[in-house]
Amino acid sequence: MLASAATGLAPRRRDLDFQLFEVLDVEALLRLPQFAEHDRATLSGVLDTAYEIAGDFFAPSAAELDAFPFRLVDGNVATPESLKRALRAYVDAGFMGATFRAQDGGLQLPATLSSAAGLVFNAANGSANAYAFLTIGAAHLLAAFGDDDQRERWMRPMVEGRYFGTMALSEPHAGSSLGDITTQAIPAGDGTYRLHGSKMWISAAEHDLSENIVNLVLAKLPDAPPGVKGISLFIVPKFLLDEHGRPGRRNGVHVTGLNHKLGQRGVVNTVLTFGDDCTGYLVGAPHDGMRQMFHMMNEARIAVGAGAAALNLAAYEYSLGYAKDRPQGRRLTDKDPLSRPVAIIEHADVRRMLLKQKAIAEGGLALVLYCSYLVDIANASEDAAEREAAHGLVDVLTPVAKTWPSEHGIESTSLAIQILGGYGYSPEYPVERHFRDQRLNPIHEGTTGIQGLDLLGRKVRLHGGEGLRLFVEAMQHDIDAARGVAGLREETPALEAASRELVRVTRALLEAQIELGPERALAESTAYLDAFGTIAVAWRWLAQARVAAAAPPDDFSAGKLAASRYFFRYELPAAVATLRRLAELDELIFSVTPQML
Amino acid sequence: MLASAATGLAPRRRDLDFQLFEVLDVEALLRLPQFAEHDRATLSGVLDTAYEIAGDFFAPSAAELDAFPFRLVDGNVATPESLKRALRAYVDAGFMGATFRAQDGGLQLPATLSSAAGLVFNAANGSANAYAFLTIGAAHLLAAFGDDDQRERWMRPMVEGRYFGTMALSEPHAGSSLGDITTQAIPAGDGTYRLHGSKMWISAAEHDLSENIVNLVLAKLPDAPPGVKGISLFIVPKFLLDEHGRPGRRNGVHVTGLNHKLGQRGVVNTVLTFGDDCTGYLVGAPHDGMRQMFHMMNEARIAVGAGAAALNLAAYEYSLGYAKDRPQGRRLTDKDPLSRPVAIIEHADVRRMLLKQKAIAEGGLALVLYCSYLVDIANASEDAAEREAAHGLVDVLTPVAKTWPSEHGIESTSLAIQILGGYGYSPEYPVERHFRDQRLNPIHEGTTGIQGLDLLGRKVRLHGGEGLRLFVEAMQHDIDAARGVAGLREETPALEAASRELVRVTRALLEAQIELGPERALAESTAYLDAFGTIAVAWRWLAQARVAAAAPPDDFSAGKLAASRYFFRYELPAAVATLRRLAELDELIFSVTPQML
Repeated sequence: MLASAATGLAPRRRDLDFQLFEVLDVEALLRLPQFAEHDRATLSGVLDTAYEIAGDFFAPSAAELDAFPFRLVDGNVATPESLKRALRAYVDAGFMGATFRAQDGGLQLPATLSSAAGLVFNAANGSANAYAFLTIGAAHLLAAFGDDDQRERWMRPMVEGRYFGTMALSEPHAGSSLGDITTQAIPAGDGTYRLHGSKMWISAAEHDLSENIVNLVLAKLPDAPPGVKGISLFIVPKFLLDEHGRPGRRNGVHVTGLNHKLGQRGVVNTVLTFGDDCTGYLVGAPHDGMRQMFHMMNEARIAVGAGAAALNLAAYEYSLGYAKDRPQGRRLTDKDPLSRPVAIIEHADVRRMLLKQKAIAEGGLALVLYCSYLVDIANASEDAAEREAAHGLVDVLTPVAKTWPSEHGIESTSLAIQILGGYGYSPEYPVERHFRDQRLNPIHEGTTGIQGLDLLGRKVRLHGGEGLRLFVEAMQHDIDAARGVAGLREETPALEAASRELVRVTRALLEAQIELGPERALAESTAYLDAFGTIAVAWRWLAQARVAAAAPPDDFSAGKLAASRYFFRYELPAAVATLRRLAELDELIFSVTPQML
Repeated sequence: MLASAATGLAPRRRDLDFQLFEVLDVEALLRLPQFAEHDRATLSGVLDTAYEIAGDFFAPSAAELDAFPFRLVDGNVATPESLKRALRAYVDAGFMGATFRAQDGGLQLPATLSSAAGLVFNAANGSANAYAFLTIGAAHLLAAFGDDDQRERWMRPMVEGRYFGTMALSEPHAGSSLGDITTQAIPAGDGTYRLHGSKMWISAAEHDLSENIVNLVLAKLPDAPPGVKGISLFIVPKFLLDEHGRPGRRNGVHVTGLNHKLGQRGVVNTVLTFGDDCTGYLVGAPHDGMRQMFHMMNEARIAVGAGAAALNLAAYEYSLGYAKDRPQGRRLTDKDPLSRPVAIIEHADVRRMLLKQKAIAEGGLALVLYCSYLVDIANASEDAAEREAAHGLVDVLTPVAKTWPSEHGIESTSLAIQILGGYGYSPEYPVERHFRDQRLNPIHEGTTGIQGLDLLGRKVRLHGGEGLRLFVEAMQHDIDAARGVAGLREETPALEAASRELVRVTRALLEAQIELGPERALAESTAYLDAFGTIAVAWRWLAQARVAAAAPPDDFSAGKLAASRYFFRYELPAAVATLRRLAELDELIFSVTPQML
């Protein structure tokens, strides 16, 4: 299967196979009862199909979708035919239901594999993939918290790709601070609710791609306690169902405006208003909406990280191909102006940019796939202790997996532009789109600042520091395995030292939360998150390097070892330096006043 | 004059006055014969006017200009009225001729002041300012190399703002590698030339803003030696002059396409084709075009850095105002969900982002103004040794001043987006435009890679290392002056140590150029350039901090001291670490092959 090489899709198939079957042991998952119906050949076939659909439908639509002038006409938004074709092919191949149980109409595949396929779609056309990703997330949420009737009426059509879904959290005045939302849900007396209020930045809440749109909306009941403890979750469909269970009357949820954004422009982004006759259905218990939404949100956050990694991979792949083809300039040792120009990849600075991109893109890929693998263990292992450990570890890694590929992706996609020079800056080439698309990832589904507070203020200290212990233990496992490997004598002790430093500094910061209070101790949680993320990615590079070092030497293995070495020499030391600085609990940032700025 | 505070223009007037009259001694320039006609009041009046025009005309046009759909109709491109008004006001106030001699129709102001005013225009509307900046650069070039007739016919109308100028270097296959251009200039036998070929990425080569457009074009004569030594410079006007010296017949230079770019969209960007009857006039001697163009190019490179600093200042200013106004969330110590949300500047992570922006934006500002100050000394000092030293120092600093605010500006403007969250990502707010505009600066007028090679491969080793010596000496001057200052006991030795490290590592890299060859030794010149730049900016922060430490304590001084301290604690150590790594001459990047990527 040479689709990837033939079409320039990302990630390269060889790398994806390496990550799934050599670095992670996805075949081991197939021994679990939940995935017993599958074998390596099925999984391989699913990936073949993903590359085929991504190449035939997603990639060719990406530029058109990015430039498509979405307009709100009588409350409706039309989308381009190429997007409809892409999503139809996606649905027809069963990807919408990839991870759902067979009895719910799904393929019951491991999340790791679904995530891998998602990366291929995302790299080819992130905006198109967003419609699917939102639908899958909404359906997962109803799978977890909906009652039988809700699952039948709303979840199943999403699994089958007939309805699409959304998640509607933010309001114009409340994005990061969800406790302050004001959308109200008033009991109608018949078990349903009437919603009032409006939502902001809601992706895919209007389009012509599906028979219905299932909005999952956070709102407050009249007797709600204040803050996040008073939030409930509602199904607010675009069309109410008729007596046959089919989309009938238009519900009172209306798109009252479109937001146009810097990137991810192919995702219709709306202002959503709940009118006087807007019906909603409560999901689960009253006031339990935040917990439920966070079930979806954690999945969404890992998916944002995966989308970010996919953009990095796509930009890397494109700029690598360009650098190999584009003649410009001569080697520094060649002073003959009549000699033929060389391909720019011959210039060391271009190779530097490519190697850095590779280290970020493939390192992020390894991290997000590892998280999906943990999700599979947490959901499907037969060993309760293993399930719990995997759950605890993925909980700690979620803010990291969301943030690291996103934040470092700004630089990584920017390097792709730099390699293309003036052409990189032009819409005729895809890398400026990757750069624009990437810029949203550190914002949506919880900003980087929110993720930092989540990690240092919550995740690493939950259950007496269990989360951090799990992380360090998991790293130690790979450190021990790599210890004897000849080619990794530099990396193995470096990661071990970084891990020790992380433990030491985390303890100091947790003590400071008690001694100095949370504001001082958490003032630099973003820097902590970034250093933590770099250590996590270094770990995933070590895991890759160990496999590459054991493989027969070839360009692929040599490339993995070089990128790993680059990461350990160029990126990891800065993270360790950051940790050391953090341990000093510098008051500078905290003490700056608004008037001094 | 409160225009800045009133309208949110950047840089703040107080800061600009601080930089010009307290950190730099611009009043000392007024004692030089060339600037003797001016006094502090004139300079102040010029700045008043700049803020007024920027606020009244440039800023209000910025969003419209960015979104304006430039179209090529019958070879012509119409521009919006708001742009015409802005440039008319600019020209009428004399800014086009600010730095030209009075006898040439100029105001004979110091470059430092013109650069300061340019920063204000750039921050308000960088695209509008580009038309002026290109014209000034073209006129400067003719002032230096044109003959009397050329200066009268082409330069003077540019100084008066009746004609606008361009610089036409790049071709579709040759941007960084100018030696490979193929545009030809054939002698017509009457002293003029006929040009054939085409140019790519040419800014402002078509518009309806001026009576004529003076393209300064690099081309090759039939007998040209190969490479950069065979390039000549030609005046290729849009309209040839009639017998009265006025624009008459259309010349055979045609815009055959428009390039649309990610940012700086308000500058018409063209593909320029020289047809069969395209007349050009040789400037200076044959084959001397690269030297002449680099006269303009160095000025242009500092101006790119200044434009980058201006974008950083504008984005900082906007996000600071937003952070003070936008309520969202509560202090971490406030667990009452019914308390009022606080302005987001109360969150430490937001202050971190603002402090970092301030350190980058005002540090870059200080660096580029310092370079302009050196240009004034180099041009106008009565002391030949002082002139030479200033010239040598500005030569070394040019790649640094071009690159550092540009590269760090991507992160800096990105932080402004992050502070605004979803709104930052929307075209209704200016910061996404600043981010897009900034992305071009590391590319045009010589990519960052080219600047790195220029610095490490050329500038620091010219004249036996004279450039580096001048830099280190200039730093030492400020280090000595700051040594006794109580508030700078941390910064002064840190800069001294960084300076020593820079000297040591530079020597090692220069030796390596001989021992290991240029390719190995220069493989990481980009990293060297960045570390050099961070040290240079730390130096300019020390100079600011010294003045602030001596001033009566107030929020402004405290802010300067905090930003300086931030820079020394958070940014400088990474640069020193980079230098140490460079001294090891790691072969990793150099030895990676295309097949491994």
